[in-house]
Amino acid sequence: MNYGIIRYIQGVVLEFEALFLLLPCLVAAVYGDKEGLVYLAVAVGCGLLGYLINRKKPESKAYYATEGLITVAISWIVLSVFGAIPFVITREIPSFTDALFETVSGFTTTGASILSSVEDLSHASLFWRSFTHWIGGMGVIVFILAIMPMTGGYNMHLMRAESPGPSVGKLVPKMRDSAKILYLIYLGLTVVEIVLLAITGMPLFDAITISFGSAGTGGFAVRNSGMADYSLLMQTIIAIFILMFGINFNFYFFLLGKHKKDAFRMTEVRCYGLIVLVSVILITSNIYRFHYYPTVRRCLHEALFQVASIITTTGFASADFNLWPNLSKEILVILMFIGACAGSTGGGFKVSRVVILAKTVKREIGHFIHPRSVRAIKMDGKATDPEMVKGVGTYLATYMVVLLISVLLVGLFETTDLETNFTAVAATYNNIGPGLSLVGPVANYGFLSIPTKYVLIFDMLAGRLELYPMLMLFVPAAWKRK
Amino acid sequence: MNYGIIRYIQGVVLEFEALFLLLPCLVAAVYGDKEGLVYLAVAVGCGLLGYLINRKKPESKAYYATEGLITVAISWIVLSVFGAIPFVITREIPSFTDALFETVSGFTTTGASILSSVEDLSHASLFWRSFTHWIGGMGVIVFILAIMPMTGGYNMHLMRAESPGPSVGKLVPKMRDSAKILYLIYLGLTVVEIVLLAITGMPLFDAITISFGSAGTGGFAVRNSGMADYSLLMQTIIAIFILMFGINFNFYFFLLGKHKKDAFRMTEVRCYGLIVLVSVILITSNIYRFHYYPTVRRCLHEALFQVASIITTTGFASADFNLWPNLSKEILVILMFIGACAGSTGGGFKVSRVVILAKTVKREIGHFIHPRSVRAIKMDGKATDPEMVKGVGTYLATYMVVLLISVLLVGLFETTDLETNFTAVAATYNNIGPGLSLVGPVANYGFLSIPTKYVLIFDMLAGRLELYPMLMLFVPAAWKRK
Repeated sequence: MNYGIIRYIQGVVLEFEALFLLLPCLVAAVYGDKEGLVYLAVAVGCGLLGYLINRKKPESKAYYATEGLITVAISWIVLSVFGAIPFVITREIPSFTDALFETVSGFTTTGASILSSVEDLSHASLFWRSFTHWIGGMGVIVFILAIMPMTGGYNMHLMRAESPGPSVGKLVPKMRDSAKILYLIYLGLTVVEIVLLAITGMPLFDAITISFGSAGTGGFAVRNSGMADYSLLMQTIIAIFILMFGINFNFYFFLLGKHKKDAFRMTEVRCYGLIVLVSVILITSNIYRFHYYPTVRRCLHEALFQVASIITTTGFASADFNLWPNLSKEILVILMFIGACAGSTGGGFKVSRVVILAKTVKREIGHFIHPRSVRAIKMDGKATDPEMVKGVGTYLATYMVVLLISVLLVGLFETTDLETNFTAVAATYNNIGPGLSLVGPVANYGFLSIPTKYVLIFDMLAGRLELYPMLMLFVPAAWKRK
Repeated sequence: MNYGIIRYIQGVVLEFEALFLLLPCLVAAVYGDKEGLVYLAVAVGCGLLGYLINRKKPESKAYYATEGLITVAISWIVLSVFGAIPFVITREIPSFTDALFETVSGFTTTGASILSSVEDLSHASLFWRSFTHWIGGMGVIVFILAIMPMTGGYNMHLMRAESPGPSVGKLVPKMRDSAKILYLIYLGLTVVEIVLLAITGMPLFDAITISFGSAGTGGFAVRNSGMADYSLLMQTIIAIFILMFGINFNFYFFLLGKHKKDAFRMTEVRCYGLIVLVSVILITSNIYRFHYYPTVRRCLHEALFQVASIITTTGFASADFNLWPNLSKEILVILMFIGACAGSTGGGFKVSRVVILAKTVKREIGHFIHPRSVRAIKMDGKATDPEMVKGVGTYLATYMVVLLISVLLVGLFETTDLETNFTAVAATYNNIGPGLSLVGPVANYGFLSIPTKYVLIFDMLAGRLELYPMLMLFVPAAWKRK
């Protein structure tokens, strides 16, 4: 373990957090909120601390995968702890645990909230909550890599550890250029969404914060009614954009480059589209059959919005789907676990992993019929690395272990019903936000006990960082000095 | 696909079923029940049909893994369909779907019942229900192989397809001898349990039927109160025996042979013991803390009985654990999925698979720290076949797919709560019996709709036969003549 570099990078992270915290100061200045001063003070504090920490350059440049995982895990914890401080100082969220829960929920783009009334927050704090979604969606480390020239072999290890999906494809030979391209696409799409929402008449503050939330596939809203009070047109724009942010960003890279056709040949994107289509049809017919909404068109609208919101693990609520019929709820719970595409800002298990597992099952059954055949699993028309396929199976096992232990721990700390416990874990672990029953879309996580909140904080980070970085923190061998 | 042999084996299966059906006739003769005549008639019918079917020897002896899987799947369906007929003719279970559900539940050792009052059944039918547990526990095909000299290469394929676990170890070089040894150990343990229960004062009929149920880790009782009315001593004997039947039978083989120490070196058996111990301690403290029973000793008794009953997937109920606190219920639900040891009569995912997956996860994490290390996964001190390890990951994926589709289908057909739907599938798929909520230990499956019952029938068979035989029925390529 190279402690020098890990320390050094934490300094950089804090300096960047100082920059991020200046944005809510600007917002406070516009609205004349006094909370701006708190954000300014915390920003200055972070900046100074960061400067002190990375004044001394690290001695050794040795940097391996373990260092990458540990660095990313610690960076996210540091970001969240310091990001939570303004909420505590402004007394908007007086409990540190609650403030940390809210900030982790923001950075991990979960969108689970402990607040019963978000409208009580200042503009600065509402903006900061939504901005954490935006920066967490594509990744803080990826952002730093895109901006700062970092030399040495660690770019790749860091980007691998932070980016979601079974295999991280470099878009271009240099990692730094890949990070830049990703952020430019991300920024471009966000700006288009802000403009479209503003054109349809949404107040600019709402348009910006909600676009941040959609882009990161977070789920924090700025109104107590969530999305329900915006017009159906605005909701439709939001639904389409969150679906777009749930697509593997390689898709846009192909679309912008010479090989436009390759974009539509991506197996993962096709399957993602198919899952969305089938789910929308099933839920529409199910809620129409039980007369939840008067017209088919309205049912289709609600089904599309919720399917988009859940599969991309955004968790925006336009309707209280906790009241929907069982089949619809079950489909939504399954979508919670499938999640969005790898290489998108969405969470969950990821469509590509589901596809690889489905193909593995198919191959296993085929193997009984033709025992001597050796068939590789293909994605996008190319054979995949067998090591990656094995890794997906292991990921599933690890994923289940963390899920079960979390549900057990929540069961130990809470006396709520199984549906609440299970979906609270499922919704935070998969970075969605709202679950069912007592943590449904019109409820919040505030009533849970402190130990439960820490379990869920761990789950949000584990889900966003795809398990291994957070688990590595508990492996004594990883901490040994080499 | 070699249709000739599959047909031929179905004839043999029917002839054996005729023999099995003679046992309830004997019971009816003892008690003077007129239902005995029905069983006799069905036995004669099965015998004749079987004779007609296998009069013509199969032309080709070509027999591969696919044939093995398909034969086993069809055999179990045939056994269940004909085994259900007496219930319908005696009008004890007038609906064929219900009778089939009950019989499949019997053979697969699930123990889920559609009956609200088992005490209304005749002795013959009660005996037949419990006897299906006994024969299904170790396997019908294994039984036939132990008794009948079958030549050709198909013994191994058939035994592989019917025996549970990631790898089928031959005890001795000849499959047929292995089958005989297994059944002798099985019979021996069953007889000891009958004798012990009878000595402690249980009526002989109860002692025999309950020992059949324990041996097969089924869960059918002969009293409406389940196990609750038997003395605590009897319940403790039953708990210990079901735990013993949940152990990999290789353990007893080692114990009876020269290498007694090897028995206690079995990784799976050690882990099984550890899981039982930890679960009993957690549940005891949980139910004692909430004052469910007056003394620690009583809490320990109830915890031990339910843990034994659930992890071995037996499903005998001595208490309504649906009323227990959430942590205890969650532990029981997790035990439902873990299941018993491979090579035992229990169902579920199997302890050895859980162990292999846990070791894979550990290796994966270790791999980040020492990227160049190549470490094999060890079981019982020996390195395992990497193909088997890969197979366990695929099995998990297949298992999840069947689980999710089943829950979705039940959600489509029923309007019951998610806990009922999910645990109904979990309890049948893992061959346990009682679930939670509306299908809890004091309830039954009778109220479900016909389509749901067929989904659960499929799940029971898929769970008992470890997925692939039942899935193979749906693969068109498997049915092609070669």
